[in-house]
Amino acid sequence: MKIEKLPTEQTISRTPFPGSKKIYVKGNIHKILIPMREISLAPTTDRFRNITEENSPVTIYDTSGPYTDPAVEIDVRKGLPKLREQWIEERNDTTKLESISSEYGKSRLFNPDLNYLRFEYSQKPKKAKQGHNVSQMHYARQGIITPEMEFIAIRENQRLEELYSKNNDMWQQHKGHNFGAFSHKGFITPEFVREEIARGRAVLPSNINHPEIEPMIIGRNFLVKINANIGNSAVTSSIEEEVEKMVWAIRWGADTVMDLSTGKNIHETREWIIRNSPVPIGTVPIYQALEKVNGKAEELTWDIFKDTLIEQAEQGVDYFTIHAGVRLPYVPLTAKRVTGIVSRGGSIMAKWCLAHHQENFLYTHFEDICEIMKAYDVSFSLGDGLRPGSIADANDAAQFAELETLGELTQLAWKHDVQTMIEGPGHVPMHMIKENMDKQLKECGEAPFYTLGPLTTDIAPGYDHITSGIGAAMIGWFGTSMLCYVTPKEHLGLPNKKDVKDGVITYKIAAHAADLAKGHPGAQHRDNAMSKARFEFRWEDQFNLALDPDTAREFHDETLPAEGAKTAHFCSMCGPNFCSMKITQDVRKYAEEQGLNEKEVFDKGMDEKAAEFRNNNFEIYS
Amino acid sequence: MKIEKLPTEQTISRTPFPGSKKIYVKGNIHKILIPMREISLAPTTDRFRNITEENSPVTIYDTSGPYTDPAVEIDVRKGLPKLREQWIEERNDTTKLESISSEYGKSRLFNPDLNYLRFEYSQKPKKAKQGHNVSQMHYARQGIITPEMEFIAIRENQRLEELYSKNNDMWQQHKGHNFGAFSHKGFITPEFVREEIARGRAVLPSNINHPEIEPMIIGRNFLVKINANIGNSAVTSSIEEEVEKMVWAIRWGADTVMDLSTGKNIHETREWIIRNSPVPIGTVPIYQALEKVNGKAEELTWDIFKDTLIEQAEQGVDYFTIHAGVRLPYVPLTAKRVTGIVSRGGSIMAKWCLAHHQENFLYTHFEDICEIMKAYDVSFSLGDGLRPGSIADANDAAQFAELETLGELTQLAWKHDVQTMIEGPGHVPMHMIKENMDKQLKECGEAPFYTLGPLTTDIAPGYDHITSGIGAAMIGWFGTSMLCYVTPKEHLGLPNKKDVKDGVITYKIAAHAADLAKGHPGAQHRDNAMSKARFEFRWEDQFNLALDPDTAREFHDETLPAEGAKTAHFCSMCGPNFCSMKITQDVRKYAEEQGLNEKEVFDKGMDEKAAEFRNNNFEIYS
Repeated sequence: MKIEKLPTEQTISRTPFPGSKKIYVKGNIHKILIPMREISLAPTTDRFRNITEENSPVTIYDTSGPYTDPAVEIDVRKGLPKLREQWIEERNDTTKLESISSEYGKSRLFNPDLNYLRFEYSQKPKKAKQGHNVSQMHYARQGIITPEMEFIAIRENQRLEELYSKNNDMWQQHKGHNFGAFSHKGFITPEFVREEIARGRAVLPSNINHPEIEPMIIGRNFLVKINANIGNSAVTSSIEEEVEKMVWAIRWGADTVMDLSTGKNIHETREWIIRNSPVPIGTVPIYQALEKVNGKAEELTWDIFKDTLIEQAEQGVDYFTIHAGVRLPYVPLTAKRVTGIVSRGGSIMAKWCLAHHQENFLYTHFEDICEIMKAYDVSFSLGDGLRPGSIADANDAAQFAELETLGELTQLAWKHDVQTMIEGPGHVPMHMIKENMDKQLKECGEAPFYTLGPLTTDIAPGYDHITSGIGAAMIGWFGTSMLCYVTPKEHLGLPNKKDVKDGVITYKIAAHAADLAKGHPGAQHRDNAMSKARFEFRWEDQFNLALDPDTAREFHDETLPAEGAKTAHFCSMCGPNFCSMKITQDVRKYAEEQGLNEKEVFDKGMDEKAAEFRNNNFEIYS
Repeated sequence: MKIEKLPTEQTISRTPFPGSKKIYVKGNIHKILIPMREISLAPTTDRFRNITEENSPVTIYDTSGPYTDPAVEIDVRKGLPKLREQWIEERNDTTKLESISSEYGKSRLFNPDLNYLRFEYSQKPKKAKQGHNVSQMHYARQGIITPEMEFIAIRENQRLEELYSKNNDMWQQHKGHNFGAFSHKGFITPEFVREEIARGRAVLPSNINHPEIEPMIIGRNFLVKINANIGNSAVTSSIEEEVEKMVWAIRWGADTVMDLSTGKNIHETREWIIRNSPVPIGTVPIYQALEKVNGKAEELTWDIFKDTLIEQAEQGVDYFTIHAGVRLPYVPLTAKRVTGIVSRGGSIMAKWCLAHHQENFLYTHFEDICEIMKAYDVSFSLGDGLRPGSIADANDAAQFAELETLGELTQLAWKHDVQTMIEGPGHVPMHMIKENMDKQLKECGEAPFYTLGPLTTDIAPGYDHITSGIGAAMIGWFGTSMLCYVTPKEHLGLPNKKDVKDGVITYKIAAHAADLAKGHPGAQHRDNAMSKARFEFRWEDQFNLALDPDTAREFHDETLPAEGAKTAHFCSMCGPNFCSMKITQDVRKYAEEQGLNEKEVFDKGMDEKAAEFRNNNFEIYS
């Protein structure tokens, strides 16, 4: 038996970001502290006019959790501080169970062989009191603004209101902004968060057994979010690696993490991940259920699956991918596809349906599942088991038939006040992407869309973070709320740390490009700060403002290692002799000296030569 | 003085592509041979039905030139075979000059210090006979189909007509295809190539002094093309490196290469590159002109610039970036920008205009430039010197004022039958990209658009191949004809070989995604072959069909090195126990055994459970 490697302080990334510090913003309604990252900038020094101006620091949304705050002590064996514990207590609608409820969970707990690898400090699970519904959607529909909701409102605003009110130019620019669907002149209020959750247009994944999370929201009137998949497999990886992959993924910007483990010790691996995760954790319970029947899909039963749901809900999984839309009648619709059914969950259920020639038990037991979800506040991520696995299969009958069923199930989930989002493709060429978004909004009552890419071509294995980043940026712009990353290893192998980082950074780019295109107020603030720093040769500021400061600095130093180069008013592209930015500064200086304004130049601009030339032109054309 | 390193057989990449061979397709009108790459595929073996089917090889457009054909002997000191020499001779409208015409060229030629690094086998330059115009546009407008034009028609078709006619499914699919703007049911004819060039909607860069090129075309009714920039700078690189960068760039798919050298021995570096390049070479002559006046823009004169144009035209540069649209009145429009003028050429001319307070001499001498262009068939790439350098400056007054002037100049160039394309931005958020394309088509009479990205956000230095790949794919779909690559080093440093490859592959992805979205007939052929190979676990075929076979194989082997794994019917993502593709195969087999067709399943599919459930639903909703 393979010995599990366990995480330690040494195996976890804890370096703070350069030029940045963690700040904590106070709540108004609730006694809460919202963590953000503040990047300080150097002042602007204008050599020509010999002026120095301050540049106010840039506050950004921070997914990295306590790991990037040197002031916080972290013991991975004990897990993260339980930020939400008191909030949950005060709602007084949960009970602490005497022991875990799932049979499988118990069998793992009482297996002495696992003692050495089991997470020691697990607490007894909580569950909703009899007859109670502890979902954030339920509270929202009661008109209650929970601490989680206020936390999100402040977090999404990134202190922009404060910043703009201090700076008139920014304030004017902000006022002139097209806010699109964004409420309250683009500043998110706790009430707006509540409305969106109550309406089902946003999901706040927050299992009562995962008090460690820093609340975040998934909805198209908020910042576009990204998910990173991790998890071991039968052929590779350890608990130590998976926990570090999670910490590594959120460091670079993952808003949620899905544990897709299909290998050994799935239960214990998940416990280690959840206890140390400040972001919501999602899973695909059917994966573990399948392992319980040794990979024989036809042997799956509702009871085995139900026990798995409860097992994972009591550990604190925040959302479940449930492939309830893979209905028996739809299965043959995939028979003529180039790539058939490529979703694991989808093909498991398809196989089960055909083996028994019965309707998908996830569909027939859907309301039983709702009962479990609302007892722990687990959100649905309704899986697209029939998503296309190739350009050739995009937007076909099977895919859209399932999507319609997911819409039907969304209504059912909402009847139970269970939070729900919808998973989307997959492989889709650019001109067929918008149809996916439009149909999802229509069929699923505007429940948040959560897509995998989509990949816009099939021919670039090794670069599918890019083929899919293109589709992800576009569908994010069109209204997708969360983008599931794709790593360079897609279709080829399991992602290592470098792949996880490449995938996350690529998807942060896609999500941010989408926020800009959606006109998310303040999304452009960081771009403007970067461009100003770039124009003013503030190299350190450029590195610190970058999505990946380490790589930016490393690439710069490859060509110009000298420390001096970082303050020099030129870069390696043009060399010291000539630099377009320097020339532009000369142009400005010159324009100022000449006291030229646009009008004047237009009038005076045309000297004889130009005039003659214009006459020539006319001759030419006559 | 730094000693130049020169290229040798050992410093040039010559490995053929795995599973591929170079084929040469015969012309019909002219005696020409068009090189293509043929990827052979393994047969499909269906273990369940124990059937074996052949998979016909995939022919793809090949930019790599003779370097990937082991049968061709190459001596970099002598340069490539002169494919077009006879075609040019037979037109009998050129004369061989006694010596090169440019003063600077002569001074370099007679400088003994340069003997050791000078390309030995340069020939005397050709020039149009007195009163002749040797541009492909001129021939096209005379109704002449040149060998270059037929070469392109056959090259763009990639033998698809032949392939489809052999395979009825493909033929039906092709017939059912939306051809968009594509002529002749999507098969390119020589006459269509001629029409598009005559109309000015496509450019065929082919300087009579660059007979080594394999003709290619840039126009929106053809495959989307990509350009790779190389070139030394004051601070780094050598002739040896630059020639290999060119060979490396075309290996991965660059359709043209721009030599943007601004360092030492620019003239000789260019000669080495052109003589060894099977793709058109572009330059920005103002860069070299600036070096001739030691970087002092205000000292530039028309005579120095003119001498530079002739010097480069006689070496065989196929297109010139000319910043003739940076007019004096537009310069102050940039003064309030976040990033001013970021184009080197643009800022050089802006500085010149202000220093002399005169109209841009490239604008006033534009028709003199046309006279030079048509004497060698150099194409215009009208530079966007005022392109935005940040999201904040996108689509502003300066940018669009220049674009209107470029439209005016296009008409002037066309009056001289000089081939012309238009350069575009830059930094543009997704929602502002289409406006760029629409305005360019309108203002510039549908002359081909040639854009740099655009970058869709400013915050990811180190990943700008991706931030720009997103914008490039979109604008390619909207109608841009050629995409100028951006490497990961953009804004940070000079690209090395790895950066060049990353940039080229990313842009091949963008261009191909655009071809798919435009409905380019046959663009999807390679995707389908890849997806079929993927579904059938033909790992070797997947690697060989990939844009980058080396990386695809390497990533696969990282997780599953065993040779066996490449034929195994599973992959590392799910492991041997369970695999969604295997299950799908089972599903198909099962469906067949059951003799289920879609209709039947829909009828029989709903057993009691499902029926009850449906009833429940109705109760629920009532």
